[in-house]
Amino acid sequence: MEKNQRIVLARRPTAWVEESNFRFEDSDIPQPGDNQVLVKNHWLSLDPYMRGRMSDVKSYATPVQIGEVMVGGCAGEVVASKHPKFAPGDKVVGALGWQLYGVADGNALQKVDASMIPLSAYLGSVGMPGVTAWVGLNDICAPKEGETVVVTAASGAVGSVVGQLAKLKGARAVGIAGGAEKCRYVVEELGFDACIDYKAGNLRGDLKTATPKGIDCLFENVGGEIFDTLLGRMNPFARIAVCGLIAQYNSAPYPMQNIGSVLINRIRMQGFIVSDDMSRWPPALKELGMLVATGKLKYRETVAEGLAAAPTAFISLLKGGNFGKQLVKLV
Amino acid sequence: MEKNQRIVLARRPTAWVEESNFRFEDSDIPQPGDNQVLVKNHWLSLDPYMRGRMSDVKSYATPVQIGEVMVGGCAGEVVASKHPKFAPGDKVVGALGWQLYGVADGNALQKVDASMIPLSAYLGSVGMPGVTAWVGLNDICAPKEGETVVVTAASGAVGSVVGQLAKLKGARAVGIAGGAEKCRYVVEELGFDACIDYKAGNLRGDLKTATPKGIDCLFENVGGEIFDTLLGRMNPFARIAVCGLIAQYNSAPYPMQNIGSVLINRIRMQGFIVSDDMSRWPPALKELGMLVATGKLKYRETVAEGLAAAPTAFISLLKGGNFGKQLVKLV
Repeated sequence: MEKNQRIVLARRPTAWVEESNFRFEDSDIPQPGDNQVLVKNHWLSLDPYMRGRMSDVKSYATPVQIGEVMVGGCAGEVVASKHPKFAPGDKVVGALGWQLYGVADGNALQKVDASMIPLSAYLGSVGMPGVTAWVGLNDICAPKEGETVVVTAASGAVGSVVGQLAKLKGARAVGIAGGAEKCRYVVEELGFDACIDYKAGNLRGDLKTATPKGIDCLFENVGGEIFDTLLGRMNPFARIAVCGLIAQYNSAPYPMQNIGSVLINRIRMQGFIVSDDMSRWPPALKELGMLVATGKLKYRETVAEGLAAAPTAFISLLKGGNFGKQLVKLV
Repeated sequence: MEKNQRIVLARRPTAWVEESNFRFEDSDIPQPGDNQVLVKNHWLSLDPYMRGRMSDVKSYATPVQIGEVMVGGCAGEVVASKHPKFAPGDKVVGALGWQLYGVADGNALQKVDASMIPLSAYLGSVGMPGVTAWVGLNDICAPKEGETVVVTAASGAVGSVVGQLAKLKGARAVGIAGGAEKCRYVVEELGFDACIDYKAGNLRGDLKTATPKGIDCLFENVGGEIFDTLLGRMNPFARIAVCGLIAQYNSAPYPMQNIGSVLINRIRMQGFIVSDDMSRWPPALKELGMLVATGKLKYRETVAEGLAAAPTAFISLLKGGNFGKQLVKLV
């Protein structure tokens, strides 16, 4: 009889995540109860927020407990349903975790149409990362035509959407990414106006060249020294959407020097989590789905093969080793 | 014939302001041109923002040039007028600078009624500092009943108004001030719920005691280590009005460690300058004037005697030596 496979949190990381923080397990395939649905996961999404769930410091979400399945968004197919709205064969997205089979309440699953949009995209540009980009850009940054939008981790699942949406609004889109290849992709494939390779070692000078009129909107995914440098380049009345600070998830916080810019430039800085306001998801997904289906919003995926590859892929993601959306292909 | 007396910027400070940055001068009393008014200043206001105008680094306002009269708000009496709306004897407030007599366009002066409210209060609770408190508290912090508002430099011209307005809104008001005497005043005279003496050396522990439910609104006047510590105590969806960062006006910026709280707690942090939106002044001044006239808003003044005392008083202000609103009595 077929078994489930899953990855649980074995012990909490103290600094960088290591393979030994995870444990691969076999278990029985769970059975759905009333109003529940059993899903066979095809794709597992790997995202930086998972690092936070591995720690038990105070944060915006409950940490994963030791021995529990790692949290994660999945896209897959219904194999059994006790919920009236779902039937075997339906394609769904939900927080089913790092495992081959997962059970969830039907209300916690979203049925998706994989005929026009690939199923995996519902974990990227037409999923949580895409909505994150949409909410931060539209509701916090709100760039006007001709303004300059800078986004860090520009080739990533969120950053790539931020810059393309900014361009569609008539703004100047400038990315920050690690490495010449990512920067080339951001400009040539995604259509950003400029991209700065922070690994080239001339961030401040390159930033000045790429943002001749300063920065009006910053969509911040990284934190640390890059964020601090960007703070020194902000224009009066600039907006900053603080979406992630991946540079400090695994180490001591970087000592920020340029917080004075918030006062001098009357900056509005807003931290946000995309799940805070679920009412923004439907309009975001509608627009993002249309843009992906018509080829106006491009994306790229890095795919790890098989559940067992998830820990290595996640560790790589935290170090910027992914290129575009990091996925694990489960079947 | 009577002469004017004024204080000009002699040279720019490099770190702490010193007496030698200023020069005391005699000059002729200026004469008003068309639509201008000659004012004899009774009171000069000393405020932290003046430190910024002494430097020529990029900021939100043009720096004072070497040899120019120091900028400053004054309250005084019209002695000659070529503007139809002003006549000798009128009491006015305006940016007339560090001098006994000043000329200004009538449009840049505000006529005030000194019968119910002392003239000096128009430089404090019913003037720029009061409006600053009102705007930051109402438009940025917007505390709800029962929420906790923390304000730094709590006994100062701005902070004292912030806490009293917060109390009137039904919030818990907690001040941070330097010294037991200031803290006693903040609680016993101004009616704050608690005040922490940061000089007592137990800021983190005292903060925990004074804010058992965390911080919902922070009105930040100081910056540096105090600000960083407060950031670590913020609640989800907290608001921070960044009004001043006096701790770093004279030295290198403090390296902030807790900026991650902005993300974790989805904080909205907004830098602001009270002159950004002049439309907020009339409703603010109306409420503040009513509260002062009816004794519901209390304030305290530290008065230096004579224009020549202004540099010493200003240097003291930058080091927290004032108690309440720092003024110079000119006549």
